[in-house]
Amino acid sequence: MKNSTDKKNRVVVRVPGTSANCGPGFDCLGLATTIYNYLDLTLIRGGKVVVESTGEGAENIPHGRRNLTWMAVRRLLREVGRDDEFKGAIIRMKNNVPISRGLGSSSTAIVAGLVGANEILGSPLNRQELLKLATELEGHPDNVAPALFGGFTVSVMDNGEVQTFSFWPRIKLKLIVAVPDFELSTRLARKVLPRNVSMQDAIFNISRASMLIAALVEGREDLLPLAFDDALHQPYRKKLVPGMSAVFEAAKSAGALGAAISGAGSCLIAFTAAQSHLEEKIAAAMTEAFKAAGVTSKALILDVDKRGAKVIER
Amino acid sequence: MKNSTDKKNRVVVRVPGTSANCGPGFDCLGLATTIYNYLDLTLIRGGKVVVESTGEGAENIPHGRRNLTWMAVRRLLREVGRDDEFKGAIIRMKNNVPISRGLGSSSTAIVAGLVGANEILGSPLNRQELLKLATELEGHPDNVAPALFGGFTVSVMDNGEVQTFSFWPRIKLKLIVAVPDFELSTRLARKVLPRNVSMQDAIFNISRASMLIAALVEGREDLLPLAFDDALHQPYRKKLVPGMSAVFEAAKSAGALGAAISGAGSCLIAFTAAQSHLEEKIAAAMTEAFKAAGVTSKALILDVDKRGAKVIER
Repeated sequence: MKNSTDKKNRVVVRVPGTSANCGPGFDCLGLATTIYNYLDLTLIRGGKVVVESTGEGAENIPHGRRNLTWMAVRRLLREVGRDDEFKGAIIRMKNNVPISRGLGSSSTAIVAGLVGANEILGSPLNRQELLKLATELEGHPDNVAPALFGGFTVSVMDNGEVQTFSFWPRIKLKLIVAVPDFELSTRLARKVLPRNVSMQDAIFNISRASMLIAALVEGREDLLPLAFDDALHQPYRKKLVPGMSAVFEAAKSAGALGAAISGAGSCLIAFTAAQSHLEEKIAAAMTEAFKAAGVTSKALILDVDKRGAKVIER
Repeated sequence: MKNSTDKKNRVVVRVPGTSANCGPGFDCLGLATTIYNYLDLTLIRGGKVVVESTGEGAENIPHGRRNLTWMAVRRLLREVGRDDEFKGAIIRMKNNVPISRGLGSSSTAIVAGLVGANEILGSPLNRQELLKLATELEGHPDNVAPALFGGFTVSVMDNGEVQTFSFWPRIKLKLIVAVPDFELSTRLARKVLPRNVSMQDAIFNISRASMLIAALVEGREDLLPLAFDDALHQPYRKKLVPGMSAVFEAAKSAGALGAAISGAGSCLIAFTAAQSHLEEKIAAAMTEAFKAAGVTSKALILDVDKRGAKVIER
């Protein structure tokens, strides 16, 4: 009897790591990547929260009720009025997404908890409603949106409500992510930004973000080299990521269409068309440039994830 | 002999009026509309510049060598090294685009001169090269780009070079333009803008411009109501166009998907899906709201022009 209940209340969810901003799309663009965190979630009647994790950041992930995935599970249970029924959970995580590097690891924890609990309860909420809860928990939609929907996402905040459009680019891209050996807190990366910017820099980003979307949706690779540049956040964050400009230049010299800080960093991400087969060369150039700046890094070669959060076992 | 030479050196060009910015796409988005100016151009050997014009603004259009179309013709002749051969022109204009109202009338004059002269000379320049000259003459690409290419355009300035992407939206739109009975100089409309803006307002526009492009290209009408809002220029220009906010609200209440200042004003433009057949209602609401603010206006109901500048007689 207990076993059958447990089985019914268990699910395994896969959630992609994400990269926000993509250069000019500060605080609105994001993409999902083919690096995944896995959550094996069981909702239980008793008020016990068991957290087991392996992989990236396993030693630092909070256990018990301060665990982010549990907080997302509990938020969903409350939202649908079933928090009296399930007072605890067994949370088993297997994490591949590096922590505090601008690849959306905290968003994977939130989205996994929401999608997992929602699935167990018979999907009372749709994806738009899950997005709303995820945005509330994370504070902004940049990473939770692509983690939920997959592909590229454009998110607009309107009076505290989030609206997201996800699309699949007509250019098959390879993503090269240089992961340096240091973490960067989003809070610090926010703190270095000015409150005011020049109108000229605002227009710089508006035009490039617009060009980026148009080029991706319409499959115009020739327009991309202009479209990844940014004037609003990267110039200020440069000092937090030693070698940033050199890594960007190295990536472009090796043939990348563009390069950007991934989210609030510390990762740097470069973009290339899959058919050009330059990803290995770009990866080597990026880690080499990091090394010249005294930073040890490893490179990940990824694709854009198409599916977003996905239930893989039920 | 003279007649045959004249005929060979004569062309008639049609150029669409345009609407720049479209709300959030300040200084980078534009669209071409189905209101047209016509240029009947003859290049002549002698150094005489004859200008005849009928229609909008006919009484104020400079004649002789200060005429904008002639300046464009001469710029092209110089560019291709044939200014010794043709020292003058007969310029006959028939103008439907209202002057100094934010509908790109000066861009039509420039683009018509360039496209006309280029055609007569056997098309030595391609459209990208014409765009470059037109941008140089106009000072910015916002109106000349859609006037040349048609459809919607995204333009990016990069070290003084312009790159433009034009696309045809997957939503059939109707454009309602309220034309007030006063002119507004672009210089004045620029002067009221601040040099610096808040990061928050910059992000507001980046996200909406991105959403606008994505929604138009992918045909997602449901996403448009959020996508036409702006925080960077319209709030400051409001005082130059009495009744602006009221006209926007009236258009939306009548069912418009969004509304914006057309270019630097004074026209206001609203957007609706053609299939909703709301254009007449929106037009009436806009002129009524203008009237309540003490402004006399007329409404134009237009489509998006697909072709851009077009040679219609040769």
